[in-house]
Amino acid sequence: MAKSWATPGVDLHLEPTGPRVRRGLTDALREAVRTGRLSPGTRLPSSRALAADLGIARNTVADAYADLVAEGWLTARQGSGTRVAARVPTPSAQWGSTAVPPTGIAPHPRPRSRPAYDLLPGVPDLSSFPRAEWLKAARRALAAAPNEAFDYGDPRGRVELRSALAGYLARARGVRADPGRILVCAGISHGLQILGAMLRARGASTVAVESYGLDVHWRLLAGTGLRTVPLPFDERGTDPGQLTDQGAVLLTPAHQFPMGGTLHRDRRAAVVDWARRTGGLVVEDDYDGEFRYDRQPVGALQGLDPDHVVYAGTASKSLAPGLRLAWLVLPPGLVEEAARAKGGKDMCGALDQLTLAEFLNSGAYDRHVRAARLRYRRRRDALVAELARRAPQVHATGIAAGLHVVLRLPPGTEQATLRAASWQDLAVHGLHRYRHPDAPADPLDALVVGYGTPPDHAWSGALEALCAALPEADGEGSTGSPSPGP
Amino acid sequence: MAKSWATPGVDLHLEPTGPRVRRGLTDALREAVRTGRLSPGTRLPSSRALAADLGIARNTVADAYADLVAEGWLTARQGSGTRVAARVPTPSAQWGSTAVPPTGIAPHPRPRSRPAYDLLPGVPDLSSFPRAEWLKAARRALAAAPNEAFDYGDPRGRVELRSALAGYLARARGVRADPGRILVCAGISHGLQILGAMLRARGASTVAVESYGLDVHWRLLAGTGLRTVPLPFDERGTDPGQLTDQGAVLLTPAHQFPMGGTLHRDRRAAVVDWARRTGGLVVEDDYDGEFRYDRQPVGALQGLDPDHVVYAGTASKSLAPGLRLAWLVLPPGLVEEAARAKGGKDMCGALDQLTLAEFLNSGAYDRHVRAARLRYRRRRDALVAELARRAPQVHATGIAAGLHVVLRLPPGTEQATLRAASWQDLAVHGLHRYRHPDAPADPLDALVVGYGTPPDHAWSGALEALCAALPEADGEGSTGSPSPGP
Repeated sequence: MAKSWATPGVDLHLEPTGPRVRRGLTDALREAVRTGRLSPGTRLPSSRALAADLGIARNTVADAYADLVAEGWLTARQGSGTRVAARVPTPSAQWGSTAVPPTGIAPHPRPRSRPAYDLLPGVPDLSSFPRAEWLKAARRALAAAPNEAFDYGDPRGRVELRSALAGYLARARGVRADPGRILVCAGISHGLQILGAMLRARGASTVAVESYGLDVHWRLLAGTGLRTVPLPFDERGTDPGQLTDQGAVLLTPAHQFPMGGTLHRDRRAAVVDWARRTGGLVVEDDYDGEFRYDRQPVGALQGLDPDHVVYAGTASKSLAPGLRLAWLVLPPGLVEEAARAKGGKDMCGALDQLTLAEFLNSGAYDRHVRAARLRYRRRRDALVAELARRAPQVHATGIAAGLHVVLRLPPGTEQATLRAASWQDLAVHGLHRYRHPDAPADPLDALVVGYGTPPDHAWSGALEALCAALPEADGEGSTGSPSPGP
Repeated sequence: MAKSWATPGVDLHLEPTGPRVRRGLTDALREAVRTGRLSPGTRLPSSRALAADLGIARNTVADAYADLVAEGWLTARQGSGTRVAARVPTPSAQWGSTAVPPTGIAPHPRPRSRPAYDLLPGVPDLSSFPRAEWLKAARRALAAAPNEAFDYGDPRGRVELRSALAGYLARARGVRADPGRILVCAGISHGLQILGAMLRARGASTVAVESYGLDVHWRLLAGTGLRTVPLPFDERGTDPGQLTDQGAVLLTPAHQFPMGGTLHRDRRAAVVDWARRTGGLVVEDDYDGEFRYDRQPVGALQGLDPDHVVYAGTASKSLAPGLRLAWLVLPPGLVEEAARAKGGKDMCGALDQLTLAEFLNSGAYDRHVRAARLRYRRRRDALVAELARRAPQVHATGIAAGLHVVLRLPPGTEQATLRAASWQDLAVHGLHRYRHPDAPADPLDALVVGYGTPPDHAWSGALEALCAALPEADGEGSTGSPSPGP
């Protein structure tokens, strides 16, 4: 084996053999890092050089490097090549650490994708979870809880939480709610499973959805036996004109996910008209209604017609997904059916429910949301400003609200941009994955950039990595692979 | 209306009319109590006297009284007649109280069955939930939690909890577990829903169950499309001889619910043989394996063959149902399927999971279980002694373990005994409700008496009420109605 390494004198002693060369190479490299034979910071040969050395295809080496970057064993930076990560996953660091380390790779029980920079949408800044305030609320809730709170509970959830939510949702989102019509559930996904089962039991076979949305929601509905049929999408949002005899329509009216717009008022009215005319159900996914920056929040669609709209909200964006707390506000006639579809039992821990009730009633929730809104707004502003400066060719949309923006890309460049992002050790999603397979319009190329996720200390680095990955003005993606060694 | 009331000078001003006389009487009485027109402690006329006054059947009055006792508006004591409850449900007392009041009716958002004495099985003493210890564990767990604990989690649940459980279950229950094969779920019911969906996806159509068990479990399995087929039951427990091509069998080997016995060792072996021979799955519901009093706990059946037995355990009996935390230990090949059947997401709050992990690891769980075991054992002893003294004709079985006993009754007396219990303001279940409708043997008459539920201060009163309700030695139930006024 020739010794044309970037770090002179280091021989990797790799002998990948057999038909599955990429797998063999990946395993051998991982083992070398794991055992410390390749120490942190060591620069690896370029993929071209190693491929030549080993007599295998360059792509095979590049793929193996990419796998190991994704797993956290290696890092890749434009201009500094591929190196052994400063902190690699170790079994002894499975838990107990209180924070993601300032740079590098977060320890994790099993090596898996944990890139240096994370701009995936859908998750808030987990490092800003209000631990001290939450514990305070938990202490008060635990002291005040009646003994029966520890019993099997009302399938709708704790009445304390439902009462607190009814007040909050009326005030903050214009939802017409009373505690008797609220069903606490373990995330909006769980709520959709419940609604899907209920719709199936009523004989529905299809649910209209938006052209762009969460595939996990479509799969959950399919799992309950419902076919999802996408509605057309244009600059005024999702077009309800094609709603006919579907049992329900699932919408994100306040902040379309992921496109970011608000459903036009004519269309809000048209959706409610359809529901009244046909007896269909409107399901309003208000996943991040708390976060609107440039004007007053858009009130919930449910306020227009609480008898035909199910409102779905969640603590996953405003606090943390790990709480597994969300809520449905149901039309009066559906409460019993939904409780049955939920299995007739409460499935969320009573103490977390009581704590969230206390958190809402004490004002801690409002304070947390206000602080988070300010922080996310600053990030949004920094992102938009940086893009205007460094990538003026990229158009950002959906910036008025939420925790993500959509960056429209020149046609045909989404895949290349995602590859470039991967080489920046940046996790980000393309728009294609959010497009319903049966959506009527042609696919658009774009990035869906979540700016809630990075902890504050990692935000500027993430922004830097994003700008470096964006295509040039001429529309060609910068598909940077690690530069070869000197 | 004549004025032959027990409390002279009080006229109830009731004029029940129309065909639904009982309903009308119940509503009128409830309204009179609710508005305060009948004040707390007021003694009502005997059912005989009121029936004569109103010109309606005595049973109608007795039934209306019983309904209102069950709802908490009235109380009934042998020898002191029927009275307006000392504390009646009021909307303003919906929550915030920290304990069930020492006597009388617990406040509740809507009037529903909340009798003075509760000997229903299936719920531990909720007043002994270790609030201070739990809060301590929560504080430590929250301080040590990595940020990613607040993210969407592994569908199997938090690795910290699964690791703590693997150690605990091996030590305390002889379960062969590793964290990778544990699935945290929101109660054993949730676990059965997951297993049911998995079995259906594998093409199973029937599940064998025990002749006596929880109807809610049979309904959950039916809800996933599985037919439940009961196996014969005799003094050695459930007979697995009739197992053939069922997809699975659901058993309570350590402590049959509700009969209370232990599955005979030959039958344990036969069940595992069946599973190996046919590829069927054994589901071991170990709902209260921690509580055995007179000898060493019976080890889990799962220890015999972890590749064919799913072990299901729960915190519902050892701590509290309100935590909504239970766990499945799965054969290696079923983990992915079960995680998919669960919906691919964790549904239990991360903080409760981390807190329970801390609770287990710190030894607080063992301490709590030891103290609870001692307390329940004392209650068991007091119950058995009191029965021997006051109702020697009643045979108690299943006393070696758990939180309930079965009191065998003379044939044909179960219904009368339950009515007598209701007049004692005592909630208790008959055995009939736990018998599978297709069970091969004739129904037995018995009471299923849970002694975990009452808080300590209510225990002797509950015991007193139970003994008063039991049938006389001649086999006739003491169907006491409130004695007429003086």
